[in-house]
This record gives sequence, structure tokens and C-alpha cells, in this order.
Amino acid sequence: MMYVSPSTGREIKAVLFDTFGSVVDWRSGVARDVAAFATHHRIGLDAAGFADAWRAKYEPSMEPIRNGSREFVPLDQLHLENLHATLAEFDLNAAEFDDRDLADLNAAWERLDPWEDSTAGLIELGKHVIVGPLSNANLALLLRMALRAKLPWTVIVGSDATRAYKPTMEAYRNMAWILRLDPGEVMLAAAHNRDLTFAQRAGLGTAFIPRPTELAACQTGDLAAEGDWDLVCVSILDLGSRFADA
Amino acid sequence: MMYVSPSTGREIKAVLFDTFGSVVDWRSGVARDVAAFATHHRIGLDAAGFADAWRAKYEPSMEPIRNGSREFVPLDQLHLENLHATLAEFDLNAAEFDDRDLADLNAAWERLDPWEDSTAGLIELGKHVIVGPLSNANLALLLRMALRAKLPWTVIVGSDATRAYKPTMEAYRNMAWILRLDPGEVMLAAAHNRDLTFAQRAGLGTAFIPRPTELAACQTGDLAAEGDWDLVCVSILDLGSRFADA
Repeated sequence: MMYVSPSTGREIKAVLFDTFGSVVDWRSGVARDVAAFATHHRIGLDAAGFADAWRAKYEPSMEPIRNGSREFVPLDQLHLENLHATLAEFDLNAAEFDDRDLADLNAAWERLDPWEDSTAGLIELGKHVIVGPLSNANLALLLRMALRAKLPWTVIVGSDATRAYKPTMEAYRNMAWILRLDPGEVMLAAAHNRDLTFAQRAGLGTAFIPRPTELAACQTGDLAAEGDWDLVCVSILDLGSRFADA
Repeated sequence: MMYVSPSTGREIKAVLFDTFGSVVDWRSGVARDVAAFATHHRIGLDAAGFADAWRAKYEPSMEPIRNGSREFVPLDQLHLENLHATLAEFDLNAAEFDDRDLADLNAAWERLDPWEDSTAGLIELGKHVIVGPLSNANLALLLRMALRAKLPWTVIVGSDATRAYKPTMEAYRNMAWILRLDPGEVMLAAAHNRDLTFAQRAGLGTAFIPRPTELAACQTGDLAAEGDWDLVCVSILDLGSRFADA
């Protein structure tokens, strides 16, 4: 009833998940709320295109914080800044909307539905190990997402506690430190090979779960495992069963 | 089905608990593990006296961090430093014990039993609001305590996320900020009037639950509410019923 990571040589005591894309379907959820916002304000908008444009600003917006040229701010704030920029890209002026409406649209990132195997898989895994997110999202966002989607996390530690954004080494190592675990006792489960590459470099165990429809028809990457990961699974439920059988 | 704090005028969305003494019985739990340590090492020790002496160093050890003369370190580390000092007080030399044995004894603070009403009360409260600790303990400690004692917290935010020790204003306000709540939407529930005084000053709602046996026969303070608290309850179960009936 314990799983030893072949790469770290340690018993895995916590399986932590990349969240956006790996546990929840951000693209459909954000597009749904963008469409509702557009209807409410009587604007014509390509909701999925808007969601993609908003998400495209996600990685670049963390970069100044990763490289130390900007102080840490929580993802909520980056999402809001990126929303303003995305509105401008779509020839809309953020100043013309009520701040509360923009805050509510910004909260689209916490109203995301789990992939169909996620909840059952997390429940199974939670019988064997600590289960939580290892996301760039802050606790307030992850908590509301978990309450709405009934994600059965054992514990939620946000990036506002590690004060580091993946894929910096600190993001992975501070998380292990906060949990008082050795990095080798922690496994990252993710649908993104890049995230796993850096987690492995930080000394964590790794599990890949493909989410080939995360980016809908546009998706060309992350269709299969591209590294030497401890586990390659077809779903979180499958990952749970590996721990049940270990 | 919502409770509005008469002092903050806001709907309470999270009830957060002082933990040591208010939710769990630290004195019996620590004394039990001190006794086991003494037996294992064949030392004669007054286990309850040792627990009291160890705990007596708790407040003073946070003071340099509160006043800014020492950088924040997690409570685990303060507990360990205080354990070394307590051993010395009992004419024992920490260097004569294995570091792993001392780390295990230090973890006595996470092997504490809830008061008999705590778990049922937290379950009831959790149907209505976010329920979590607002403790000086760090997340790793609170998580292990929760897993062992099956405390049904909605979310655990440790003092290592607020990076502040009660009763500084930051300890209460950073907690509300991390949860993305207004301080007036958060209620502190505690058995200690002093903690409630500062929480109220920070803008939080307040609930008093007496724990007249926390310090066993020695207890003279905190036998009754000494401030104008929103709620004065006889137990956490009673507090839960107030939210159920609101």
C-alpha cells in the first residue's frame, strides 16, 4: 500500500496536480463565462477566441516575477491585468465596464469544471496519499474552485504561500518544504510535459496524464509523454488505481 | 441560512479557529508523548510539568518575530528551540538525544486530540461557512494534526502563509486577504479572550468557547467571556447550531 518513485527512490507521500488543463477544463469554462459577459453587455465576441487570447497572456505575465524584476503578486491580479489587456485586444475598453463585472468575469478561472475522471480519481488517490494542487493559482482561487467543483483535495497550498511561479525550482521545492516533505516524496501529476521536466529537475516524482482536448482542435503538443516520467496514465482515475495496486 | 455579525455588520463567510486549546487539548497530548519519551529513554520526568514548561516558552519565543527583530520562522522551529531549552531546564542535555527522537517528540504538537465536541461542531459549521484554523502553527503541523485527528477543515492556511504571529494585526488581516474575504466576513472562534480582543481590533467577528480544563487545575483565566463578543457559546457544537439556526 505504498508507491516508491523509481526516479527519486522515495515513497511518494503527496501527489500534487497541475490544475488548469490537468484537473479542470479551463477553456470551456472561461469561454462560457465570456459568452455570458458578452450577452449581458450586448457585445459580439468570439468567446473561445477571447479565452485563448486571455490565456495566451498567462505565461508571459508571470515572467517578470519569475526573473525577479517584479515583486510577487497573486495570480488573481495577473488574471485581471491580462483581462484588461485582452479587452483592449478585442477593441473594448475596460474602463467602460463596472469593476464588479470585471471582477466577476475574472472569477471565471475559479468556475471551471473537472474533467470527467478527475473527481473519482482524486478520491481514490486520497485514500493513499496527500492530494492537492501544485498550481500557479493562489489559494483564494483554488479554494473557490474546489468548493464549486467539489474537488476532494486533502490540502490546498497556493502559489501565494510558495511565493513562486512554476516552473522555477522554488515553486516545486518550497511546496515540498511547506508540506515538510522531501522533494522526492512529492509527485507532480500534470498534462504538460514542460511542467514535469522542471518538477523532475527539482527532485520530484512525475506522472503524466494526457488531456488531448485541453486546447480543442488547436492542440498539437502534450498529446503523449515526452520524458522519462515515473508514471504515464490515461486519466487521474488510472493514476489512482496505480496507487491502490502499489 | 446566513449569520450576520452584529459587530462587523457583514455576513460571516469563514469561521476560523484558534487551535491549541480551543479545538485540541494540547496539554494532555504533549504530556502523553513526553511520558513516552521519558520511558523510552529511562528518565524520570514530570510529563505534565514538562508540557507546561515547554508551552510557557511559546508566547515569548514568537515575540522577536512579532516585533520585527527576528525574521519569520515557522512554529515547528520555535517548538524545537523551546524543546531544547525545556530539556535544559529539566537538567537534560538535548545533545545526548538522537535528532530524530527530538524531532519525533517535537511532533507531539501535531498528535493532539480534539475536545469531544470539536469534530461534530466543525462538521455542522462546515455546512454553512468555510471552516479552518487561524493558528500560530504552520501548515505542515496543522495538516498532520488534521489528518490524525480527522478535523474536517474546509481549508488550512498556516501562519507560514500569513507570515505573522497572532496577536499582530497582520496575522488576522493577512488571513482574510489570503482567503479574499473582508476581515468583517471572517470570525475568529477561540477559548482565549486576548486572542479575540485583537481579532476584534483587526475587524473580525468573534466567538468565545470556554475550555475551562485546558490548563487543568492551574487554570484561573478564560473561564468566561470577558469582552463584547458576537457569540458566546458553550462548545463548538453550540457554535455550529447558531449558524444552522441563523
